[in-house]
Parts: sequence; C-alpha cells; structure tokens
Amino acid sequence: MTPPEYTYPEGALAFPHRGLVGIAGLAPHEIWFLLDEAEQWVEMNRGAQKRRELLSGLTIINAFFENSTRTLLSFEIAGKRLGADVVNMAVATSSVKKGETLIDTAMTLNSMRADAIVIRHASSGAVQLIADKVDCPVLNAGDGQHEHPTQALLDALTIRHAKRAFNGLRVTICGDILHSRVARSNILCLNSLGAEVRVCAPPALMPADIERMNVTVFHDFDEALKGADVVMMLRLQMERMEGQFIPSPREYRHLYGLTLDRLARAEPDALVMHPGPMNRGVEIDSNVADHIERSLITRQVEMGVAIRMACLDVLTRKGRGMEGWA
Amino acid sequence: MTPPEYTYPEGALAFPHRGLVGIAGLAPHEIWFLLDEAEQWVEMNRGAQKRRELLSGLTIINAFFENSTRTLLSFEIAGKRLGADVVNMAVATSSVKKGETLIDTAMTLNSMRADAIVIRHASSGAVQLIADKVDCPVLNAGDGQHEHPTQALLDALTIRHAKRAFNGLRVTICGDILHSRVARSNILCLNSLGAEVRVCAPPALMPADIERMNVTVFHDFDEALKGADVVMMLRLQMERMEGQFIPSPREYRHLYGLTLDRLARAEPDALVMHPGPMNRGVEIDSNVADHIERSLITRQVEMGVAIRMACLDVLTRKGRGMEGWA
Amino acid sequence: MTPPEYTYPEGALAFPHRGLVGIAGLAPHEIWFLLDEAEQWVEMNRGAQKRRELLSGLTIINAFFENSTRTLLSFEIAGKRLGADVVNMAVATSSVKKGETLIDTAMTLNSMRADAIVIRHASSGAVQLIADKVDCPVLNAGDGQHEHPTQALLDALTIRHAKRAFNGLRVTICGDILHSRVARSNILCLNSLGAEVRVCAPPALMPADIERMNVTVFHDFDEALKGADVVMMLRLQMERMEGQFIPSPREYRHLYGLTLDRLARAEPDALVMHPGPMNRGVEIDSNVADHIERSLITRQVEMGVAIRMACLDVLTRKGRGMEGWA
Repeated sequence: MTPPEYTYPEGALAFPHRGLVGIAGLAPHEIWFLLDEAEQWVEMNRGAQKRRELLSGLTIINAFFENSTRTLLSFEIAGKRLGADVVNMAVATSSVKKGETLIDTAMTLNSMRADAIVIRHASSGAVQLIADKVDCPVLNAGDGQHEHPTQALLDALTIRHAKRAFNGLRVTICGDILHSRVARSNILCLNSLGAEVRVCAPPALMPADIERMNVTVFHDFDEALKGADVVMMLRLQMERMEGQFIPSPREYRHLYGLTLDRLARAEPDALVMHPGPMNRGVEIDSNVADHIERSLITRQVEMGVAIRMACLDVLTRKGRGMEGWA
Repeated sequence: MTPPEYTYPEGALAFPHRGLVGIAGLAPHEIWFLLDEAEQWVEMNRGAQKRRELLSGLTIINAFFENSTRTLLSFEIAGKRLGADVVNMAVATSSVKKGETLIDTAMTLNSMRADAIVIRHASSGAVQLIADKVDCPVLNAGDGQHEHPTQALLDALTIRHAKRAFNGLRVTICGDILHSRVARSNILCLNSLGAEVRVCAPPALMPADIERMNVTVFHDFDEALKGADVVMMLRLQMERMEGQFIPSPREYRHLYGLTLDRLARAEPDALVMHPGPMNRGVEIDSNVADHIERSLITRQVEMGVAIRMACLDVLTRKGRGMEGWA
Repeated sequence: MTPPEYTYPEGALAFPHRGLVGIAGLAPHEIWFLLDEAEQWVEMNRGAQKRRELLSGLTIINAFFENSTRTLLSFEIAGKRLGADVVNMAVATSSVKKGETLIDTAMTLNSMRADAIVIRHASSGAVQLIADKVDCPVLNAGDGQHEHPTQALLDALTIRHAKRAFNGLRVTICGDILHSRVARSNILCLNSLGAEVRVCAPPALMPADIERMNVTVFHDFDEALKGADVVMMLRLQMERMEGQFIPSPREYRHLYGLTLDRLARAEPDALVMHPGPMNRGVEIDSNVADHIERSLITRQVEMGVAIRMACLDVLTRKGRGMEGWA
C-alpha cells in the first residue's frame, strides 16, 4: 500500500537520524522506510530460522530504568536475532541506586563501547539527555510521558498489514491520554501517515491543549467510535484507578471500556488494538480482546519484534560502515 | 543397560509429544529415548568444546514465575550450548505484577515467535494451561505440587549411569512427599522404568491416597531403608520447618534425616541423591552428602544440563523440519 | 613503555596461575603480561567488529552475590565479545536465599561444567574458598575488603596508556582506605610495577598497619598531593557518610574531596582516576571528574572490558588445550 508520496531517498538519506528518541521530527517517508525495512523481519520471524548475523560483533545494551517485561523481551529478542551481543542492565542492582547520576551511567555504557543503547526511563526527556552524551545510537523504549516511538511504529505496521491505506483512516485512541506516551507517539505517527486521529478520555485524563496535536477531542466514547476504522485502547494504570482521576474500575468500564456492544458503534470491520498488558474487564472486555476477526493485539506483539529489528539494523548501518551510510 | 523392552520406533514416533508437561502420559520407551539422547550431551559437556549449533536461529524463552537458580541456569546453559538464542523473562519485573493474566503473558511470548517456552510456576496446572494456548513446545520446569519432569529424567539418567538396571531396583524417596513435585515425577518415572518405589514421610507430609501411585508407604525411615539401592532425599521447605507439619528441624533430622549410621541400614552399595538445594544437617548430613563413593548429588546437576539439552533438541525437531519429525 | 625487567617467559609460564583471586602473589612480569594481552582487546573494542570467537563453546558463569552494575556488565560484555556463552546467576533469586551454603552453590556451578566462574561476594576470602573447590578458573570480581584484582589491572592499564613509566611514578590514593578492596589491590599492583604509592584518609578510615604495605601515609590531603602524578579517588560508601566515620559529606569534601583548587597542588600534568560510581560533590567535584585533559575516569571503564577479556582468555588457555598452555 505504498502511496507515491512515501518514496524515500537512497542510503543514509532514507533515515538521516543518529537515534530514535521520538516520532516527533521524523518525516513521513522516514517512518515509511522503517515500516518497509521491518517487513523482511516479519517474514523471517515466521520461519524456522530466525537469526541473521547482520549485527554480529556489535554490543547492544538495554538499560531499562523502569520495569517492563514485554518491551525488554522484544528488544532483547530483536538484537539477538540480528546476531548482536545483547546485555541487559538490571534496574534493581543498578548503580543508580548508589546515587550515580544518569549521565554517569550513560558515560559508563558508552565507554564500554556499546554500538546501540536502548533506554526506558520514568522521566520525560531522560533519553534525549543520554543521547546527547553518548557516541552511539540511542533508542527510546519509553520515557516518562514523552514518547514511545517503537510502540507507535509497531502499531503503524500492524495497521498497514490489516488496512488498505492510512489516508482517510479514522483511528480512535481511548484512555488516559494525559499520561500516555503511547498515545503521544501514536498521534504523531498516525497524523504523519495521513490518518485522522480522535482521542477520547475522561476530562481529568485529557491534556488541556491536545487539539494542537491535530486531533479531534471526545469525552463520550460512543460518539468517538462512530465511523472509526481502528480503536486503540490504552492501558489504565493501576495508580489512576482509585482516587482523583477515576471513581472506580467499574465506572471506568461503564463509560470508557470497550465492550462488544460498544464496538458495534464503530465501522463494521473496525479493528481493535491495545499495547498491553491489558486490564481485562476494565478498559477492554475479554470477548473484544480475543475477537479473532477484530482484535490485532497479539499481532501487535509480533510486529514489535520486527520493528525493533528494523530500527537496530538501520541505526547501526553507519557504525557498521555499510555502503551509502558510513 | 538397554533392556530389549525399551527399544523405540524411529523418527517422531520415538517421542510423539508436542511438549513436556509431565512424566504422566509418557511410555517407558519414550523416557528411555530421552535418556539415550542425553548421553551425547553428557559427553560433549565434559569436553573443551561445549557448543553445537543445532538450535541456531531458534528463540527459547525461560519464563520462571517462581524463583529458581539452578533450574534456570541449567535450562539457560542447555539452550545456549545448543546454539539457540535464549532469553529469560524476569519474574520480579514481569507484567504479571501489573495484573496481566497468565494466558496473556503466554500469548505475548507466543507472538514473539518463541520456538520453545520453559515455564516454572507456583500453581499446579499452570504449565498445561499455557501449553494449550501456544504454538510452540512447552517444557515444564516445575509447576506447583504437580510435576517437575526434567528433574525425574535427570535422576533416572544419574541412576542409569551408576546402576546396572532399573528392573528390581529399590528406590526409597524420603521427605515431604505431600508437597513435592519432584517426588511425584520421580515416582511416575521410576515406576515406568521398572524400579520398585518406596516413599517415606511423617504422616502429616504423606498424601492420603499415595498407594494408588504404586508405591510402598513407610513412616519409619529405618524400615524404608532396608534393602534400598538408592535413597532419594527431598528438600525440607523452610516454611514447613516450623508449625503444623514439623515440630523442629532437629526433631526432623532425628526421625527423617539421612545420617551415615542410617545409610548403613540400606544396601552396602546404596547411592544417595538430593535434588538440591540441601539443608545440610536437616534432611541430610554433610558426611553423607559429600560421600565420594555414595553420593550422586553433584552428578545429578551435571545430568540436568544434558537432559535439558536432549528435551530442547527433541521437542524442536518438528519445528526445525528435521527429517522424520516434520 | 616495556622496561626490560618485565619481559616474561613463553607459554603457560607467562601466567602460571589457575585463577585470579588477587594481585597478591603475582610477579611483576605476570601483571605486565596481562596488560600486554589486553592491548589487542582495547584495539578491537574501538572498531566496528567487536567479537572474536576465541572462547566459542565455553561457558562462563558470573556469580555476583553482591550487587554491581558496571563490573557485571563489564565481565558479561568481555565474555560475549570473546564468543563464550555467558550466563549470570541472579543474586536476588539465588538458592543462597534458601539457605544453601556457598560451597554447595559453587559445586553446582562446577557440575554444570563451567569453564570459568566470575565471583563477587561481600565476604573477604569467599572467592578463594570457592576457587579451592571447583575445577575451573575462578576470577575475583571483588570480595569483601580483600581484593578486586581486575580493577587494579584496569587502573594500571589506564595509567600505562597515559604515562611514560611506572618507575618513580607517584600515585596518591585518597578515601576510605580501611574498607577498600580497590585500594588494597591497587597498592599491591602499583608497588609491584615500581610506582611510589601514597595513601590518604581520615584517621578512622586508615588501617592501623598500612605502612607494611609499602606506602606513605597521609592524613592531610594537600600534603599527599604535592608532587603526585596520579590521584586516585575512592568512592565514599553511603553507609560511612553519617555517624562514626565521617561527620558529614560536606565536611568530608572540605577535607578529602578533590576540587580543582586542590588538584593544582599535584603535578601540573597530574591525572585523576575514580573506580566509580562517583559521588559528585563529595569525594570529587564535577569540574575535576569531567576535566577533559586530566580525568581518566571514562577511560578506566573502557580498559576494564579489555582487561577482563585478557584475563578470561589467558585463564582458559589450558582448558582450551592451547599449545604451550595445556
């Protein structure tokens, strides 16, 4: 489904960035390039032989300052399938606990001659801070409430596999928009690719100036679903479930949970996405999450490994001296 | 020591199971096949060159929801020595903590296109639950009080290396039979191979209907040892040491601890086993555990890596398209 | 800068030790040999291709009973860049927590047929205890207040890259000498290579009989700096910062912190080192730590990976059957 406007230049010009800190700043054809690059890995991962020694002899460090299972696993598998030496820096035992500054930790990883560093951190901007200090490409695996670019890319790849085009595609993102880096990166990415993005949240969980991001704002989920081609549900963080933001999980489900009835208000072939882990029975019902024809949730996980392989490959081309990139 | 009754058919018929959830359901010749397959790995692991790129390009995920050092290490080393990409899912940081269901975690691992998943879980039946949901072979590394099949297989391999035959071999298993998946899997395995199994435990730690498993029940350890060729001690869990089950570790040792004096009541060449980690001075005395001629305890650890290599190899043959298995 | 006295014999005689438990017991030419061996890895690590399949088929187990990020990462990267299968034994989930003795844990790792075991432990002497029990080389990654030999070797390599010679070189080590294995190993190493070592600490943090180690003792940091060519700062452990040893971090900095003003008392080209992680603004000021011409701190991290590669290579030569070593 490559529209002509997404043709991209050759070599390093196809993706002229040192790292991947966010979707912001990426041209549409650069996003498209990463999606195209990921296709070969989708293919390979489905076969019996899942390793290609492309990054052989390179060291990738996953430095996750914030807990995560699936994103860490996804990046670890991605690096290993490309033949790289992958090491995970354990959060719990990290020197950060000993009062070391983030920059010093970054300088340490850099001095060990990492070829790529993947970072997840609870503070927005922490990844950029590190990217500015080290010599190798840095990949953002989620920083605070800022961005989670590989999530947006894998979501775009998942949609591309399931729908004809992004142009005119109506995507409704529902949940805690205020605190969600997934929402932020997806809004940027989907807009860039030409989709029409709607956001829906309770007033307390909607950023004040969100319209500036070129989205239509809804507080009524039923309204937001009308005509939607894709419904992207966000995870409701436990800590929001009680107290100031949400009266109760039950009430949240009543107003903003995706039930089968509610899904019927969207387009007849509307597809359902969720970045996981899901709170079944809260933001999404099980018969929606497990809907064989409508749910893309497990597909998203699959696309995640492929997208991360593409990002690791593309960003290390210069360092590997690949022709046209060095 | 292959008795003729353990000859096995060729190709996939030698082990026609998708995964290894338990010893229950395995035919004797299937157990024998895994033991035979393990021998090459015992050999290789004793040499200087300990890797063979048999599973190269495959992804093995160790998902240990229950802490374990030696079993995890053993599976990790087994996978790496076969050339696979091995990733460990950390318990402490797992999404399970975020309220994700076990099935969702399993579906995630599956969507990352794992070629084998090794699972340890505190709940009996959890491994079967996952095995039913994923596309790849699942290996049980211990589930609740249900089974721990690779432990039983490594114990059988250890015995096979040390004794002439299983037929007529008297094996006494002593300890917390009630809560022990190691005991359960060993009873099934040893019975299947033709050994005579005795179990010995304080009444409070003996299952009510254990005779149905074709074992002789003892409460007096001295009696249970008479004529025994192999004495298999179980680890006394800390949490049982005080309170309702056991008056005190000292009293437990007095009645059910394996001392050198007590070992003398067994056959003169009786061998001693323990799955580890040991409580020295509680269920087993140091001069028994470290007895050069009688203790097989370190040998069990060695056999463990070999058995796990055999299981990983055999179970992935279909997926690797090996002739006769695909 | 190889002075003639450091020429070393060929083959195994160049380093005739089974493991590396400490600097104590190493001849100067043996230290020199390890530094020379490390140079090739410094070189390789700076290039795009950072793996050489020298230890392919070997299993290295990192058993860190004491938390550490940088040392563990450094050893893990070192092993992987040499092509070994590297597995980390997690502390938090270790059987040690289940009451297993250290020796039993060591015997378990040994039975898995490790080719090298790297150990970090909070007790002085724990590493030697294990080294006496296992069949493979053991490397000390820090044991209690005893030794941290690879730290001393990487420091020596860093100095060798920056200075002309060790003979006559004045090195001032300042900080908690009493509790520091880094100080101990460095004193032994630097003395052995011909440097003149000064130690400086508050009286409460200076060992009573330190002069026996052939060092000059100072309590006044300004005095200790006069004429120093290298200033090696030690990390002030959090737990010493309050209470009996140190009145306050502020007071510590006032008396023993390395400020730019204070550095001016050393030689004009004096270099600054710190094993990390640093307490910026306590034992070292940021404008010293980040001084482009004077600080060697990131260089130390880089040399660490190279030294650990050299140690792993040299110590496994016998096991790999290398000519002249088997």
